[in-house]
Amino acid sequence: MDRRKMLGLAGAGAFGAAAAGVVGTQVFDGVNHSAHAADAGAAIPFYGEHQAGIVTPAQDRLHFVAFDVITDKKEDLVELLQKWTMAAARMTAGKDAGSIGAVNGAPEAAPDDTGEALGLPPSGLTLTIGFGPTLFRDAEGRDRFGIADKRPPALADLPRFAKDALKPEISGGDLCVQACAHDPQVAVHAVRNLARIGFGVVSVRWSQLGFGRTSSTSRSQTTARNLFGFKDGTANLKAEDTKLLQEQLWVQPGDGPDWMTGGSYVVTRKIRMLIETWDRTSLGEQETIIGRDKGEGAPLGKSKEFDEPVFAAVGSDGEPAIAMDSHVRLAHPDFNNGARLLRRGYNFVDGSDGLGRLDAGLFFIAYQRDPRKQFVPMQTQLARQDALNEYIRHVSSGLFACPSGIKAADDYWGRALFG
Amino acid sequence: MDRRKMLGLAGAGAFGAAAAGVVGTQVFDGVNHSAHAADAGAAIPFYGEHQAGIVTPAQDRLHFVAFDVITDKKEDLVELLQKWTMAAARMTAGKDAGSIGAVNGAPEAAPDDTGEALGLPPSGLTLTIGFGPTLFRDAEGRDRFGIADKRPPALADLPRFAKDALKPEISGGDLCVQACAHDPQVAVHAVRNLARIGFGVVSVRWSQLGFGRTSSTSRSQTTARNLFGFKDGTANLKAEDTKLLQEQLWVQPGDGPDWMTGGSYVVTRKIRMLIETWDRTSLGEQETIIGRDKGEGAPLGKSKEFDEPVFAAVGSDGEPAIAMDSHVRLAHPDFNNGARLLRRGYNFVDGSDGLGRLDAGLFFIAYQRDPRKQFVPMQTQLARQDALNEYIRHVSSGLFACPSGIKAADDYWGRALFG
Repeated sequence: MDRRKMLGLAGAGAFGAAAAGVVGTQVFDGVNHSAHAADAGAAIPFYGEHQAGIVTPAQDRLHFVAFDVITDKKEDLVELLQKWTMAAARMTAGKDAGSIGAVNGAPEAAPDDTGEALGLPPSGLTLTIGFGPTLFRDAEGRDRFGIADKRPPALADLPRFAKDALKPEISGGDLCVQACAHDPQVAVHAVRNLARIGFGVVSVRWSQLGFGRTSSTSRSQTTARNLFGFKDGTANLKAEDTKLLQEQLWVQPGDGPDWMTGGSYVVTRKIRMLIETWDRTSLGEQETIIGRDKGEGAPLGKSKEFDEPVFAAVGSDGEPAIAMDSHVRLAHPDFNNGARLLRRGYNFVDGSDGLGRLDAGLFFIAYQRDPRKQFVPMQTQLARQDALNEYIRHVSSGLFACPSGIKAADDYWGRALFG
Repeated sequence: MDRRKMLGLAGAGAFGAAAAGVVGTQVFDGVNHSAHAADAGAAIPFYGEHQAGIVTPAQDRLHFVAFDVITDKKEDLVELLQKWTMAAARMTAGKDAGSIGAVNGAPEAAPDDTGEALGLPPSGLTLTIGFGPTLFRDAEGRDRFGIADKRPPALADLPRFAKDALKPEISGGDLCVQACAHDPQVAVHAVRNLARIGFGVVSVRWSQLGFGRTSSTSRSQTTARNLFGFKDGTANLKAEDTKLLQEQLWVQPGDGPDWMTGGSYVVTRKIRMLIETWDRTSLGEQETIIGRDKGEGAPLGKSKEFDEPVFAAVGSDGEPAIAMDSHVRLAHPDFNNGARLLRRGYNFVDGSDGLGRLDAGLFFIAYQRDPRKQFVPMQTQLARQDALNEYIRHVSSGLFACPSGIKAADDYWGRALFG
């Protein structure tokens, strides 16, 4: 399957999952949204050693949501996590959210599913949960749920980076759920039903839609383009990098509290792009800033996307072929003590900003074993030096500890933490 | 192709265009984004008697943009419309926006295409232009472009409807472009490049992304579901309704100024849904409000979606089977002097509203021959009586005159009006 064909099919669920060989062979029972799951949006297995939605080949659509917990009762929160887990298992399999769906529901009760995904296949839906620092100790310093001593050291609050322009109301959160799917209606349906089930226990703090995955998380995928028009994340950690994933993605025994073993930490950053300014910048300047050519995505001085950049190379003008403040240099593992991230960000357009400009950019999502050794030093360097900073603003930030996978039907999200 | 399969493939461009038999047979020259257009997102012909994007089978993704014209020079506006027409013809064919693309561009110049759609197929992209009332006479009463006497009587400002909660900053506009495609990256790329080309002449006033078309515009399509979880627009005007389209969609000779003959008027309404409130309403109440059952979409008292509603029928409780204030009754042609609309709205989720709720709803788009006889009386009645009003808020409104199609390569958007 060549690149163009892959990109062209990016909207069809059958592609994303099937090409990577991770299609589930589940037998659907109950209310299954589709008899055509295999060819039109197959299911990604919900159960497994790790949570789905991390190394899963990046689906093409995102709905990311952060919740505040609005109760102080641990038992209510745990009950919600149990209900959520059941609903997530159902929805990722292409079923409706509740065991009694709208179609069969009693007329006097509110439906246990909101209905907008009826008839749609699983569409590669994954739901990935994370726990934020404020769940362990809130802004007033309270340990509401008796878990402050279980907070992993790696879940340290992110520092303030140079040029940060964060809006608190779209940052942070006690819990997050990342919903990825090949159909936005399926991702939105999942988040909306989790919010519905959580009524009275959690409240939506912020949410973000995204499209056009900007990172490949598997070598079966091509590198997509961000809204600067460049290929992005070529040197990303990939599902096939088995050894690197143990070193840099999955939390290992002894890293911190046991409940996070097999999990990963996710950092989210909403990065507004000043695309109108960028669009008036010359092609040569754009390529110098990124450090890659725009057409092919090759490191400057090379011809193919996956050619290794040669940072020592000097151009005919005596200057480094890849500028010292270029994005590709500053973000490269060679200049970050070998640190890498598993990125699965998405483009966003949130309408316009009231100043005649599109409100658009990158919703950056990166998973890693320890943000203190990976995202934080990388972003510290980028925030100070990256030539791209003239064209971007970080407007929201999130950090969440994502536990390991659900292994059995009686397990639930957070059992190792709360149980 | 059955309904489930159709829905499952909704993200793949090949479906939407191919199923309706409108795939273009263009030979691509220049920089074509894909060699696989035919099987992965074919092109919709740009040239034709009517503008594409109206009766075109509704694609699955939307980027709608309204612009303010920020110059008073008619020649600059006309030059922009000419440039836009050329770029639109290229982009809808799957090419980049400018004749010198990023790949071949001179390094000292800003690229003539922003690059994020490189490698993507045409994806069924349509671009549809409209002219707003303020283009003919602005808020200060000025006839900036000498066309006030060409304003069609049917382009009368919409009245204020009961319960309107319109935000001026996301309403109105001098120009609009509706971009529909099967891939949001392609729709966003098109709008973004039109904005780029328009720098200094127009400014983005507002823009809206949408997904999950909520109306079928062709009998080849199934009826999709809105975020209330109900099928919507079953009785919509369809591409196949040849006679009705002449009566109710396309402007006829003698309707008004000649330049609009063969065109249509579009009304947009951003309708915020209070989905959290809706989700706590019983299934029976939801069905009573809509007037259809949720599972099948059949009118109450009937069993199939396309069964004709029997408004005179009385249930076992002696009440009308379809409530007097139900949406399906109040919106039906039988109660609107036979008036219909061609609807092609989309679902939207714009994150959350800061009050713990998703900011979600329907971006309503409806084309018609004369809003004074169609949308205005229908909405007047709905705004006063519709039981659904408890769960919705109209927060933006737009009205635009969309001229007939571009028939030849030397024609341009607005020539009949400005030429």
